[in-house]
This record gives sequence, C-alpha cells and structure tokens, in this order.
Amino acid sequence: MSNFKYEYIIKELSEKISRKEWHVGERIPSIRQLSREFSAAKVTVQTALQKMEASHILYSKARSGYYVEGEYQNNSQTLHYETIRTSIPRPVKVPEIFYDIMAKSAAFDIFPSGEDSTQSSTHLDLLNRHIGRAMRCNSKAKADYYAMPEGSFELRKQLAYIYKQIAIDITPENICLTNGCQNSLYLTLSACCNEGDTVAVESPAFYGVLQILQQLKLNVVEINASATQGISAIDVKAVCDKWQISACVISANFATPTGALMPREEKIAIAELAATHNFTIIEDDIYGDLGFDYRPEPIRSFDRHDNTIICSSFSKSLSRDIRTGWIVCNDKYKEKILRIKLLNQLASPISVHEGIATFLSEGHYKRHLINLRKTLKQQLNSMLDLIHANWQFQYDYRVPNGGLCIWVELSRRIDTLSLYHEAMTQGIVITPGRLFSNSKRFDHHIRLSFAHAYTFKRKDALLTLGKMCKQRSPI
Amino acid sequence: MSNFKYEYIIKELSEKISRKEWHVGERIPSIRQLSREFSAAKVTVQTALQKMEASHILYSKARSGYYVEGEYQNNSQTLHYETIRTSIPRPVKVPEIFYDIMAKSAAFDIFPSGEDSTQSSTHLDLLNRHIGRAMRCNSKAKADYYAMPEGSFELRKQLAYIYKQIAIDITPENICLTNGCQNSLYLTLSACCNEGDTVAVESPAFYGVLQILQQLKLNVVEINASATQGISAIDVKAVCDKWQISACVISANFATPTGALMPREEKIAIAELAATHNFTIIEDDIYGDLGFDYRPEPIRSFDRHDNTIICSSFSKSLSRDIRTGWIVCNDKYKEKILRIKLLNQLASPISVHEGIATFLSEGHYKRHLINLRKTLKQQLNSMLDLIHANWQFQYDYRVPNGGLCIWVELSRRIDTLSLYHEAMTQGIVITPGRLFSNSKRFDHHIRLSFAHAYTFKRKDALLTLGKMCKQRSPI
Repeated sequence: MSNFKYEYIIKELSEKISRKEWHVGERIPSIRQLSREFSAAKVTVQTALQKMEASHILYSKARSGYYVEGEYQNNSQTLHYETIRTSIPRPVKVPEIFYDIMAKSAAFDIFPSGEDSTQSSTHLDLLNRHIGRAMRCNSKAKADYYAMPEGSFELRKQLAYIYKQIAIDITPENICLTNGCQNSLYLTLSACCNEGDTVAVESPAFYGVLQILQQLKLNVVEINASATQGISAIDVKAVCDKWQISACVISANFATPTGALMPREEKIAIAELAATHNFTIIEDDIYGDLGFDYRPEPIRSFDRHDNTIICSSFSKSLSRDIRTGWIVCNDKYKEKILRIKLLNQLASPISVHEGIATFLSEGHYKRHLINLRKTLKQQLNSMLDLIHANWQFQYDYRVPNGGLCIWVELSRRIDTLSLYHEAMTQGIVITPGRLFSNSKRFDHHIRLSFAHAYTFKRKDALLTLGKMCKQRSPI
Repeated sequence: MSNFKYEYIIKELSEKISRKEWHVGERIPSIRQLSREFSAAKVTVQTALQKMEASHILYSKARSGYYVEGEYQNNSQTLHYETIRTSIPRPVKVPEIFYDIMAKSAAFDIFPSGEDSTQSSTHLDLLNRHIGRAMRCNSKAKADYYAMPEGSFELRKQLAYIYKQIAIDITPENICLTNGCQNSLYLTLSACCNEGDTVAVESPAFYGVLQILQQLKLNVVEINASATQGISAIDVKAVCDKWQISACVISANFATPTGALMPREEKIAIAELAATHNFTIIEDDIYGDLGFDYRPEPIRSFDRHDNTIICSSFSKSLSRDIRTGWIVCNDKYKEKILRIKLLNQLASPISVHEGIATFLSEGHYKRHLINLRKTLKQQLNSMLDLIHANWQFQYDYRVPNGGLCIWVELSRRIDTLSLYHEAMTQGIVITPGRLFSNSKRFDHHIRLSFAHAYTFKRKDALLTLGKMCKQRSPI
C-alpha cells in the first residue's frame, strides 16, 4: 500500500503541518505548485489533498484552495461530521411530508416545475425523431406483443458497448432494462434482501433509497461520507465486522447530495470487502456520465468477484420523460431480478428503447454528453458566483467535479425543513437535509442544484433564498 | 330477493326438471323460445340459465344451447369443479419454470412472438402520431422534469370521463397512472396488504396476481369460479366468515382464463360484502372494454362504500408497447398507492400519456373499440370452427361474450404442463392450466386465445396442437 505516490505526498505534507511550517487556518500551496514541487501529476496531488481533507487534516474552500483544518475567520464554517462514524442498524422512518418534497425535488430545480424551461434542444429533437421512427416501424407487432422481461436487445447491446469503454466487460445478457434508476434500485433491493435484513448506505444518502428500505422493511446502517470522497472502505469494514449486512448502496461517482467522487483505491478496497464479507454492492451510478473532466470508473470496474450490481438511467443525462433505466446484474441475482421485474411491470416499451438504441449507436449520446458536461460546469460556476457575491451569512460547501448539485451546510440554528416550507410560499424549491438521513444530523443542510441554466428568474430565486437564510442566521 | 324475474324462471325450469319433463342430457328450449314463454327479456333468461349452470342444474354446449346436467354421449365432458368450494389460506409457491411461461404467454398468442403480425393498423398509426406530437411539444421541459407521481392530468381527465359513462363518478384526482395493469396490481396489493395477510382470489386466477402474492409473502385463499359467471358472493362470504381477508382480487368482466362475466346481482352483493366484512376489492378490469355486445359495469359501479380499487390498462385494448395502466384509487389507500408508486418508479412518461389523452379526447379510442370487438368476435368464431371441425378428442369449454380467451378442459389424463413443453418444440405457445392456481386442480386445462387473427400459420398451429392432444387422449 506504500507504493502510491499520493501517499508519499500525504506523508510529506503531514510532517510539514506537524513541524508547524504551516499553521492551523493557513492556506497551503496550490495544487499546481505542489505538483511541481513533488514532480507529480495534478490528479495525484489532488488525491493526496482530498484524502487529507477526509481525515480532517486539511479543509478546502471553494475556489480558494486547501487550508490546515481548525478555527478560522471568514463567512463559512467547516463541515462538522459526527465523530461517531456509523449508526446502528434500525428501521427507516420517513415522515409523510417527505413524499411531497421528493416529488418536487427530483427535478433538481429551484422551481417546482418547468416554468423557465421552454426552449427546445437539438439533441431532444433528434432523440424524438429516433423514437418516432421506432414507433412507426412494425407498430402492429409491438402493440400486440410484450418485450421479454429484460427489454430491447438493441438497447442492451448499446449499453454493454458503453460499459466496455470503462472496463466493464459485459454482454447484453447481463443487463435488465427498467423504467428509471429508482425502479432499478427498487427491483435490485427487492431481489437482494429479505424483510429485516440490514443495508448499509452512505450518509448523507439518496432519499429514494431510504424510502425503498422503509417500504421493504429493511434496517439501515448509515456510514459517514466525506463531502468530497464519499465513504471509506475502513468504515464499511467496521460496519461489516459488527453486523451482517446484505447490501451496501453506494454512489461512488458524484453522489447526490454531496457530489463526492470516491477515489480509485477506495473503490478497489470496497470491491474486495464485498467478497470477504459476503455482501452485494448496489452501485447507483446515475451521475457517472456527468463528470466535468472525465468519466470515472464505477466500483464494478474493479470488482473481480462479481458482487456489484449497477443501477442507472438516462434521466439525469438525457431525458426524464423517456423513463429508461437499467440494471447491470451479477450472476447471483440476475434471474431473481428478472422475475421481480416481470411481476412488478411485465415488460418495457419496445419502441422507446429501440429509438434510444439507434440514437446511441449513431453517436448522438456521446456528442450530447460533451456539451452537457461543459454546460453543467458553467452553470455550477454561475451559481457559485451568484452565491459568493450575494450570500452574506455562514455557509459552507465543497466544489464537486461532476454531478448536478452542491451540499450546503448552513448555521446549525437553521432548520432547513422549516426553510423549505417558507421558500415554497415564494415558489422556490430547495431540498432540505432532513431527506438524506434517517437521523436529524443534516437538518441544517440543503442541496442546491446547477442542473438548470441560471436564467434571470433562477438568479432572482437564489437571491431570495439567500435573504431567507440571512434572516435565520446568527449575526 | 324473490323479486327478480330470473329467479321465477329458475324456479319454473327447476320444477320441470324435477317432474322429469326434461331428462338428464336433454336439450332445453332455446333462449329465444324461453324468452317468449316467460315474457322475459333474453338477458333475463340468460341470467337464469347461467345461474342454473353455476349450480350444476344445467350445462351449456358451445353454439348448441343448454342441457340438463348429467352423463351424455359426445366428444366433450362436463366441467368438474371440485366440490370443496374454497381452499384454505396458504403461501403461494410458483415454480421457477412459470416465469418463463408467463413471459411467453402474456401476448395471448399461439406463437412466441410476432411472427405472423407484420401488417400495420390505422389506429396505431394515428396513436403514434398523437404521441409524436406530444413528444415534440415542449420537449425540453418534459426531459427536465418528472411528472407528479399520479401522472398526466390530461390523461387522467380522459379516463375519468370514460368511467363516468359506466356509472363511476370520479375525478382525475382519484386516478394514478402506472406502467401497465400488472404494475397497477403490484402497487395496489403492496398498499393494501402486509406480509402474512390473506388475499382471496378467483380460481382459476390470473397468474400475475399469484406471483405478486408470492413476492409480497401474502397467503392466498382460492374461491371456485364458474366458467361463465365467475365467483359467487355466497362463496366469498363463506371465506370471509372463516378467515380475515385483507383483499379480494376479482376480474368481474371477461376474466382470464375463463372469459366469465359476473352477473350484476353478484357484483352488487360482493360490493356489499366488502363493506360488512371490511376488505378491499381489487378489481382487475383490463378486459372490461372487450365485451362483444356491451361494456359491462365494473363492481366499482355498484360499490356505495368506496371499498373497490380498479386496476386496468390499455395493453389488451390498444397497445402493449405504450406501457400505460392506471389505478382508480379509493380514499382509504390513495395516498399510500401514490407513495409506493413514487418509490417504485418515481414518475410516468409525460409525452406518451399526453399523446394518449388527445387520442382519447378526439374519439379515436371509442371508434377503435367498435372495430376491435367485432374483430375479436370473428376471431373467436374462426377458432371455434377450426376446433369443432378438427379436434377429435375429449374437450370442453364455455363460449365467452368478451375478452381474449377460452378455457379448455381436456381429459384428466393429459398433463398440460408437459403438453406445453412438447408444443414449444414445435414453436407453439399454449398457456397450461397449472399457472392459474396454487394447486394442481387445473393441470388438464389450457387457455387458448383468439386475440390474434387466425391466419394460415395460426390455423396450422391449432391443428398441430389438436394432434398432440389427440395422441395424449384416451380412446
């Protein structure tokens, strides 16, 4: 384990801090400087710094750099994760009101519905033409017969091809199409777990998973996740040593709500853990295609033991309206997943899936992703500029390298569930932290998204939200 | 209860049989003659005869009329339902092989997929144009936002309007869109029942329901159903008096596999039972629109106490590829159904549902149904002609007045599961009786469908099937 360059960098930097070369609160040299100093790639330096951040040796400030952790004077505060790293297994209790919030928050917009989204998109026009063509072709047969439970072979073939490019060697037979990532997660958890089983999740976790766990009467154990690196294999191991877990739901690439990206080594270590501790990794990879700079590998790419099942969809990268997701099954649960899909919904739409398949095979999805990643990064920057210029109160967040959102910590005095209700009266949607845990530890957090263009109306909403936060913040 | 004209007719006819005016095996006068004799409407006479059939006083022969029950000499035998009218509650055990059969049988064809179904259809071209138009309209907003869990308001409005015409007074708010009837049944059973609860079903039952019961770990109690009239309220009451049931799944209109149509009075009586015995009626009404002569009311039309939830879809009447079903909720379970839909699949496709909505509002569905009913009746007659002319062995069935299939009883020596496997080797799909019960009581039955045109290839397949049956039949 001591062969990695980044570990050498961590050692060197830690020693400088011990020797008080840099004091608490002091800014350390930039990534570029350190990269030169250590003759290391920038990404290696970044890995080192992120690991030191996860260990609370450093903290990062948006667009400013890394600092030695401790008290410091500015308008933000550090992220205080609980010192207890994991919870104990217990049933999930999701309050009724959250179903309403969920339905409104799923679009990642500051508005409840598409008020400000009337423009058309070239890639959608093209996608619609592909689907339209598939609908016209052999329409009687499609109307009269159901697709087999796993869904369109053509689309599964295209997906298998995409996965090959990120070192996942599968055939169309490994894939089961679903009607979205939530559906994929539901079917997979139904297949892998029995009532009363314990499932480990990241904390903060995707609320959709918590709700499935409640419905299926599964217990949850929450594992603290770093806002930049996600959960660590050490913490997962600690949980597995203490309790028998059936599955661990992980979003390794640009997880919601934090946008964290799990380092390669952690992915490898967790894949090994699943084999030694006999649990299934349910990998929610819906944001994997939304890396600004590159497409990181899922955990599955490193899993030599076939314990990882990927759940994903096109809802965040292409369209929510095509309702198309999929499961990359493993051998152990493939048959069970197909059976549960069959009894849950019988079949998938053939025309829509064949249309998507030709859209993919002609390279349109790949081209669309290049634009989308650029757009998302720009939208993130616009949002951050707005916040920096206008929010005059305590808040903190990490800058993600992909995904759709940032995870904003406000003053502990602010109850963001109450803020949610106030904002709704002004037609503004925020996603309160309470949704992302079975506990109340994130009650002063909100998820903010940059999935939509910061038009005048959205800017205005963000400023209004800022004023609400300021009123509730301590002076 | 003695005010009904049909009861008077039953009394009169029963007395004639007691007085030996008509002997066992003898044909009684035609419905037209009896209608004249009793000065009663034909439908009243038919109700009387069907009730006498359910009570095993009479039996009917396809296109021949009603006979006094008993031994008789011809190439068919009577339907021998068990004398025990209901089973005891127990868990469902569906053998693995059935998932494969199910996937092949769902299309109701004698071929595994659309080999013989390449022609186009005007109504499908039109439907596709409507969906295409909806996809083009406001495509960016649709791609960026999810529909609310209940789905497109426009489509729910059209459905509410259709239900008003069959005496079900609901608003769009009562309806939750799903991705098919199987999905509707899954969500509804998940909402109404907890693990270990008992659910009553018709016997023979729709296999999709049995599989959901197994997955949700519910117990099933099977209630014997007449092949013409479905289950009777008296039998349902007997079950409720003995056991606490959470729900009763009933397909009152042209149930699969028998095509039975429950008489109006039985529907009324069962709706009342649900109120007095505190259970939910889950009404699978997917075949309701496929009545040859008229559209019979669902049980819900007679339910004054809001205990009935309707599950349905367009898969049998319009297209399987649009994956569009719905639930007509009751007040008690509406919120729970919406929550489970949300966590099961988040949302429904907006464009597809808006396209269907305009297709409905312009009257195209109504016009299509008129043609479809005519076509189905013709296809049933073609199939019966073929069978009568060519099948030279023991078999029996009832002629339905709607739906997609007939339920054929073969000699008790024939194991139709083994027949299924043999037929598959010749590329022929039958649906074996074993799928329709948790017991083996229907192991000598098959479901045969007239959903598809009896083209030369299908005729050929039906004759080949007949030969296989003949080989296995006693001489």
